[in-house]
Amino acid sequence: MARPKFDTKVTRLFGIQYPIVQGAMAWASEAELVAAVANEGGLGVLGASIMTVDEFEQQVVRTKQLTDRPFGVNFPLVLGDYSKHLEMVLGHGVRIVVVSAGSPKLMTGRIHEAGALCAHVVPNLKLAESVARAGVDAIVLESYEAGGHVSPEGITAITNIPNVSRKLDLPLIAAGGVTDGRGLVAALALGADAVQMGTRFLATVENNAHAVYKKMLIEAGESDVPVFSTLYHPSRALKSPVVNTILSMEAKLQPSEDVRTFIGRGRARKAAHYGLIEEGMFYSGSGAGNIDEILTVKEVFTRILDEYGEVMGRLGALTSA
Amino acid sequence: MARPKFDTKVTRLFGIQYPIVQGAMAWASEAELVAAVANEGGLGVLGASIMTVDEFEQQVVRTKQLTDRPFGVNFPLVLGDYSKHLEMVLGHGVRIVVVSAGSPKLMTGRIHEAGALCAHVVPNLKLAESVARAGVDAIVLESYEAGGHVSPEGITAITNIPNVSRKLDLPLIAAGGVTDGRGLVAALALGADAVQMGTRFLATVENNAHAVYKKMLIEAGESDVPVFSTLYHPSRALKSPVVNTILSMEAKLQPSEDVRTFIGRGRARKAAHYGLIEEGMFYSGSGAGNIDEILTVKEVFTRILDEYGEVMGRLGALTSA
Repeated sequence: MARPKFDTKVTRLFGIQYPIVQGAMAWASEAELVAAVANEGGLGVLGASIMTVDEFEQQVVRTKQLTDRPFGVNFPLVLGDYSKHLEMVLGHGVRIVVVSAGSPKLMTGRIHEAGALCAHVVPNLKLAESVARAGVDAIVLESYEAGGHVSPEGITAITNIPNVSRKLDLPLIAAGGVTDGRGLVAALALGADAVQMGTRFLATVENNAHAVYKKMLIEAGESDVPVFSTLYHPSRALKSPVVNTILSMEAKLQPSEDVRTFIGRGRARKAAHYGLIEEGMFYSGSGAGNIDEILTVKEVFTRILDEYGEVMGRLGALTSA
Repeated sequence: MARPKFDTKVTRLFGIQYPIVQGAMAWASEAELVAAVANEGGLGVLGASIMTVDEFEQQVVRTKQLTDRPFGVNFPLVLGDYSKHLEMVLGHGVRIVVVSAGSPKLMTGRIHEAGALCAHVVPNLKLAESVARAGVDAIVLESYEAGGHVSPEGITAITNIPNVSRKLDLPLIAAGGVTDGRGLVAALALGADAVQMGTRFLATVENNAHAVYKKMLIEAGESDVPVFSTLYHPSRALKSPVVNTILSMEAKLQPSEDVRTFIGRGRARKAAHYGLIEEGMFYSGSGAGNIDEILTVKEVFTRILDEYGEVMGRLGALTSA
């Protein structure tokens, strides 16, 4: 099937072919993946995680060797000071910065001064309005279906996307729960200008994540991606020994300090780089239940765009004038 | 704008014009609403709540006086024995029965014997497969966005609908989070054959619910419809004195028995019939944040169908061959 040509606020803003953004995942969004997404016509995003400036520079350089298309970088501000990382990527000509988990005031000015674009990740309308006032160029609206930290209000895609898109004119990238062409049509119908997918790109050949992680993802069913730590830091991940322990602590009403202490730090890397089932935290979006195969990035794009066309044809056939 | 003609598995099954079902809500789905929905070309559904057979018969008779189109009835099996209610409605020629919160084995046989149709409400694929094996005619897939009791797994519409529709061929009615034409397109794109809306029809002129309830609904924002009682009986309702007390008990890690005792019984009726802010439980879907006006049922249909056409036009303009 010939791929359709897209023209949305997000494809125009970033100069990409398809309204498909690859979400940055902790320790699982490295150069090979990002370049493959860029080469297919989407927006790949390198995740800085807690890499040093030098480590992250290697990723930027490697990505530039693998693609001459635009790609982005993500800084999760809550995890540290990324000001030196920012100067480094701007120096390398990176022109798209996705900022998450922090104030839009910290980087937006500098990003614009360098002639680059700033997208900011938010979970709801309230924060979307706040980052819009700070002058960001695009919003990544991460609904409750996303992997990793989720907002305690639990606002889901089907209500979140229309609410934000009706009230803000900014290019809107919907994240959370989308894994296929059906989800792409749905997100655009609800008012998004693009989708961001993390989990779908975790289960790809090009992703650096450990094989154990990918296997867990494709085997997960609809009930295997719970939200836990609801009272202090709600997060979504695949069921695993660590998650099961947390759920059981919460069912026994143990204090959230105990849960926090048990979680500790470094579990995302233990999952993504080392596949340590007993110790790792295998963050995942709720869409894992709909992902059954590890694909190449090219196959992901082909299937989504083929299904996009099928869905549009099916919708057209449901009605007549 | 001329209304489009629809032809989906659900419009065919029920003999209705539009793939729009009105969800039965406790104490807020009476004859005037149901008939108005039927007269607009959707499927209205009378909610039996815990009415006696005589009380419910009055509703059925009144509905038949107000419309000659098909309508349905809902029995929430967990609340009691509805076998006499069932015989009564079948005797009155009702041909669509929506069964919720109970085993499909209890009523499906009798419903079919009488030549009527049975739709069953489920929250996920696992239970959808189970009721499909029992021979139901349609599935109402109630995702986490719905009002009232929600399933503890928290599976949301954007992942739930494609998962169930890919695996089951039965007519699929998606419930939860849909309040407008964008949601209708999205649900159909994800694989549903119709949507069920409760909350949108609560905030209508024809709904019998108390004015206080409707006012709370249209004033609610995105963060005002939380899920609570997560550990024993997760439910979604508007923030109110009762809900705030429950959330605070849970934040203090009070045992779920205490929460259950505090909730007690009868709070839904106190909300719907009497508008008692301090004592009532104002159940609502998460879509309340997207509902800003009390409309007539006719206006609801007109707006949704107009927006449906607009969204399809907008989607078509996003791509070219």
